[in-house]
Amino acid sequence: MNPSTSPLLADLYQFTMLQTYLEQDMEETAVFELFVRKLPPGRNFMVAAGLEQVIEFLENLRFSPEELDWLATRFPPHVITYLEQFRFDGDIHAMPEGTIFFPNEPILRITAKMPQAQLVESRIINLMHFETLIASKAARSVLVAPDKLLVDFGMRRAHGAEAGLLAARASYLAGFSGTATVLAGTLFDIPLFGTMAHSFIQAHQNESDAFEHFARSHPNNTVLLIDTYDTEAAAHKVVTLARNLKADKINIQGIRLDSGDLAEHAKNVRQILDEGGLHQTTIFASGNLDEYKLHTLLSAHAPIDGFGIGTALDISIDAPSLDCAYKLQEYAGKPRRKRSEGKATWPGRKQVYRQYADDGCMARDIVALEDDNPQQGESLIQPFMRSGKRLHPKLSLQELRSQTLINYQHLPAAMTALDPAPGYPVTISSALRAMADQLDKERLLHDREASK
Amino acid sequence: MNPSTSPLLADLYQFTMLQTYLEQDMEETAVFELFVRKLPPGRNFMVAAGLEQVIEFLENLRFSPEELDWLATRFPPHVITYLEQFRFDGDIHAMPEGTIFFPNEPILRITAKMPQAQLVESRIINLMHFETLIASKAARSVLVAPDKLLVDFGMRRAHGAEAGLLAARASYLAGFSGTATVLAGTLFDIPLFGTMAHSFIQAHQNESDAFEHFARSHPNNTVLLIDTYDTEAAAHKVVTLARNLKADKINIQGIRLDSGDLAEHAKNVRQILDEGGLHQTTIFASGNLDEYKLHTLLSAHAPIDGFGIGTALDISIDAPSLDCAYKLQEYAGKPRRKRSEGKATWPGRKQVYRQYADDGCMARDIVALEDDNPQQGESLIQPFMRSGKRLHPKLSLQELRSQTLINYQHLPAAMTALDPAPGYPVTISSALRAMADQLDKERLLHDREASK
Repeated sequence: MNPSTSPLLADLYQFTMLQTYLEQDMEETAVFELFVRKLPPGRNFMVAAGLEQVIEFLENLRFSPEELDWLATRFPPHVITYLEQFRFDGDIHAMPEGTIFFPNEPILRITAKMPQAQLVESRIINLMHFETLIASKAARSVLVAPDKLLVDFGMRRAHGAEAGLLAARASYLAGFSGTATVLAGTLFDIPLFGTMAHSFIQAHQNESDAFEHFARSHPNNTVLLIDTYDTEAAAHKVVTLARNLKADKINIQGIRLDSGDLAEHAKNVRQILDEGGLHQTTIFASGNLDEYKLHTLLSAHAPIDGFGIGTALDISIDAPSLDCAYKLQEYAGKPRRKRSEGKATWPGRKQVYRQYADDGCMARDIVALEDDNPQQGESLIQPFMRSGKRLHPKLSLQELRSQTLINYQHLPAAMTALDPAPGYPVTISSALRAMADQLDKERLLHDREASK
Repeated sequence: MNPSTSPLLADLYQFTMLQTYLEQDMEETAVFELFVRKLPPGRNFMVAAGLEQVIEFLENLRFSPEELDWLATRFPPHVITYLEQFRFDGDIHAMPEGTIFFPNEPILRITAKMPQAQLVESRIINLMHFETLIASKAARSVLVAPDKLLVDFGMRRAHGAEAGLLAARASYLAGFSGTATVLAGTLFDIPLFGTMAHSFIQAHQNESDAFEHFARSHPNNTVLLIDTYDTEAAAHKVVTLARNLKADKINIQGIRLDSGDLAEHAKNVRQILDEGGLHQTTIFASGNLDEYKLHTLLSAHAPIDGFGIGTALDISIDAPSLDCAYKLQEYAGKPRRKRSEGKATWPGRKQVYRQYADDGCMARDIVALEDDNPQQGESLIQPFMRSGKRLHPKLSLQELRSQTLINYQHLPAAMTALDPAPGYPVTISSALRAMADQLDKERLLHDREASK
């Protein structure tokens, strides 16, 4: 069973509810929407991601004989018969990946027969939540350092294999330059970057020998890690080495700093390299970086050309989860509303309209019912799958990344900063409010009748 | 390519360094150790986990033709030839899973030819880091609520598929009762638990109908979710339903609360159930829970029998990463030491000795060289793999869990609380200190010679 594709990557209750739906003939059309309840602390916006993985998951969803055998030990034969034939044949509407969005705006809508729409809940949340989390985090570094090389270094402390891969994808989608994770490069066609490890230096008796061995093995991609013992001393060794390698036409393309005061070391090292004639040798920095440290380094005019960002990116360290939910908004043609304390939802199938100011900046969003009188503005939610079939050819990750970078250009300036900006206006349409009120009244009436 | 087993789940530099090692004939034995640099804020100890996944990864590590084809587009033929034959044939020493440990204590040691030991670095960290993170977090809830049913509910907001599965494994290892994630139950033989979703209630016009339909489908496992509209009103409906179902010999085993003031609702609902004669019907609570909220609920004597813990557990929300490292400690028989600012390591192959007080409580750990004069105490690091072969039959997860629960009994009382306890004494042996000093002196001397 491949953990990434198995339909058993679900909560037990999804199967128990499925059984009851089948036994009660509750196979009418259900509409679920995925949305985030509130912004993570200190954030100005979020970036939608993960849709492609959801489409692929639903396109290929079926139960293997092995999985059915296991389920047969717990569920009655009629459930197994149903699952043998299981194919997702519902619809997906969503914001395209890379869309900037806000709380209470649905980013994904699943329209399918109830047992189907319910069964896929947890994996859909799992995929959309994580990629959206990482894209939203990565966007901040991209906006802070738009002209720098930004590389995802985080796989080792990402939460498992898939997190490492999807973090590479989501950060590239959000504007990063590439990743160090080889498998992510091969699966998603993301540019790969890499330097060397401290262990490589330590395994040599002599740091200069380590530098020379590496340069001779990789004459076209020589980035030397110079902080294992004494950073400035190592920079001098690099200058000497570069002179010796000139005859063999090998250039030292860059050096990497990974510890200490990066701004201070970068200035010292830049001077040593320049005085040694290595003006073309770039400086790459890593080591517990995030968007705040990038901002500090750039404000200090640290002469750093690129950054490797690891743990803080791949686990979205300041906000490692989003308060998101996948909720039933309509069943059998009737809108539904959850009223649980602090967790009430907006019912019905919704569209989000975005209005822009004259200067092209985003000005206001309106969350409305889909069949509301059409509102002014750009419709953010589009159809992606109908009756289980993908509607558009798959876009390359590069194309999605380009569109995301264009989307950033419509952000009001204050929202591109790391500091919290004034809240962006998101309005609930009057028809949607009226529908929610009406449902609450009906519920009250119904409860009164029932308690008589 | 299966993301969980592919050797391409590595950083690019692991392959570039491998190339240089091969070209320089640097295939001597390397010793790497994995350790955590410091405790997460507010924590008193950590729990080692993930070793079984590391052993499985190394046992099965090989390159598929597809993976080799991709590598051949970037690396010279001699590297591909080497990788075609690649098998891990090194040794693993480690603390058994479930061992309580502290900063600077190695929890895993890899002894292998340098190109092998280097190539597996990132995935080994990725596995050990995450499971250790989750086991260390889960242990806190287990110690706060040792007599309660604790269920992992976190897959949907875990960071990807593997995180959901390994969080279920690590939390069960640390003493949880089970998980809601079906695939984790099947892969790791973990007890499965589940109730129902709000959407199930919402899809019915009438809450009582939803309860009855579910109970009739699952007469032996009826846990009803009662907070969709009005918790106390729903509890009364449960009492009425239970009376009607008595003739059919169906019992309502439990109810679940998922929102609002859980202590208050639990007290009200307990009273309603008891007055209705449902003394056996248990109360299960969920909704943004963590060990602190468990502590508060138990201190308030909330009559809750079990808890579903989700996001806070699966992402270790207060400390979503550990500051861990996999560092070269010896190469070609010679100890090695990294001196980078703030990141210096203790060199050599190490053992950790644990001493106990007369009452059986852990009293002190000593980090020593393996070939140091043997220290007094229990040796925590044991051999698990030799020359690529597993040394012991695989233990079941249940056996590992039982041992972990025994380990907790040796914690000094203050360390079992949520509040920070006085630091646990971890001593570096004098021979290890002397070796580190000696290496620093040699390095200094070497640098002076080199700069002459």
